[in-house]
Amino acid sequence: MYNDSPTAALLIIGNEILSGRTIDKNLPFLAKALNDVGVQLLEVRVVPDVEGEIVEAVNALRRKYSYLFTTGGIGPTHDDITAESISKAFNMPCEHNAKAVEALAAYYKTPDQLTEMRLRMARMPEGSVLIDNPVSGAPGFQIENVFVMAGVPSIMQGMFENLKDRLQRGESVISYAQSAYVAESKVAQRLGEIQNAFPQVDIGSYPQMRDGKLGTCLVVRGVDVVALAAAKQQVYDLLHDVSGGNVIEGELAT
Amino acid sequence: MYNDSPTAALLIIGNEILSGRTIDKNLPFLAKALNDVGVQLLEVRVVPDVEGEIVEAVNALRRKYSYLFTTGGIGPTHDDITAESISKAFNMPCEHNAKAVEALAAYYKTPDQLTEMRLRMARMPEGSVLIDNPVSGAPGFQIENVFVMAGVPSIMQGMFENLKDRLQRGESVISYAQSAYVAESKVAQRLGEIQNAFPQVDIGSYPQMRDGKLGTCLVVRGVDVVALAAAKQQVYDLLHDVSGGNVIEGELAT
Repeated sequence: MYNDSPTAALLIIGNEILSGRTIDKNLPFLAKALNDVGVQLLEVRVVPDVEGEIVEAVNALRRKYSYLFTTGGIGPTHDDITAESISKAFNMPCEHNAKAVEALAAYYKTPDQLTEMRLRMARMPEGSVLIDNPVSGAPGFQIENVFVMAGVPSIMQGMFENLKDRLQRGESVISYAQSAYVAESKVAQRLGEIQNAFPQVDIGSYPQMRDGKLGTCLVVRGVDVVALAAAKQQVYDLLHDVSGGNVIEGELAT
Repeated sequence: MYNDSPTAALLIIGNEILSGRTIDKNLPFLAKALNDVGVQLLEVRVVPDVEGEIVEAVNALRRKYSYLFTTGGIGPTHDDITAESISKAFNMPCEHNAKAVEALAAYYKTPDQLTEMRLRMARMPEGSVLIDNPVSGAPGFQIENVFVMAGVPSIMQGMFENLKDRLQRGESVISYAQSAYVAESKVAQRLGEIQNAFPQVDIGSYPQMRDGKLGTCLVVRGVDVVALAAAKQQVYDLLHDVSGGNVIEGELAT
């Protein structure tokens, strides 16, 4: 874990995630999309639709990481309090943004469609820069290092595509998975020695089950390709020795 | 959100979640299982396998909520640092627990199976109470209001079953979902008025898509069954009026 690349946190806002009603799909997407542009996701929080909780999390995370991404709570209903809460976190007024009003007017076209409730979606902290919404009109916004996006996965993914060029790029982490039908504890000692020999590589060990058979998947991750290749080979040798030559490229369970 | 029931947070520990490699399945399970025993899940965090980050999150969350549950990082390999980190958070030594050693000895049976690496899984903060593992031997543990569980979903679920009688029970939240093929903004204003009329009920509005048609799912949640029934009826009337009588019980998308 940890290299010199920019860092990020994700704040997922919504009672529906905490109640188990909605399964979040934005974390795995964002983890991979951020890695593709060389930004490392280092923390995620899920908080309810409660202003004080959102403000506290936003202020903690935007100060600790290069970037903070939020998802959820930017629609037109009473439970959509993200823009208001982000404004509070920055001690800024939450006002109708002229460009956001324009974007909504362009999407809804006629004045009777551009209702007061829809115009709520143009409210954001003063000085925000819009994040275009390629799906449903209402934009997200960026203020300083905080990117505020929709919770609906297809919209969130479109917004990320439209903001990613604003991010400072670091190195993408490369990872290799190798598995065998052996218990974790059989590889634990030598694996620890390999990890110690390659501090620039992050080695993870994960028990996996396939067809009722227990195995172990070993993952090497890092940005230093030379160290990564050497660590990968040593992990291969370890699995080869312990499994009697039955090393599987990739994961057991997918 | 919020009633008088005990509160809880979940701390998910593991680089594999933050890299997007592993999709967490414990949050939705725990959200529902906790609600079944009347405990409300109010925050979730995901942190990497980094001691300082785990210690900071454990101390923040155990002080803020009635209970803290952790998942991940209790296996035998070098990247399993949860027990050590929880000990640091409590300023306690991390030592072999006699009952945990017994549990491992009972599971692995012969001395050559009970290796030093496996015995690592018996290390935990002094004074911990075990959480039996019905799947694979190595127990979780409880210290004060913190419950430390495995990350593998089947094991985590078995451990939760074995610890849930230790929790103080509150009231379970009941929820009703009603949907229609209407835009959120069409219901927003009246829905806000219904929410204001029923402060003891939590009303959520979620855009949903089915068969390419956009709709809105409205969810009422709470513990006060009288208020809940009245709010549910008003939400039904609202959807009925706006959709021309086409209200769907339950969600559009599932």
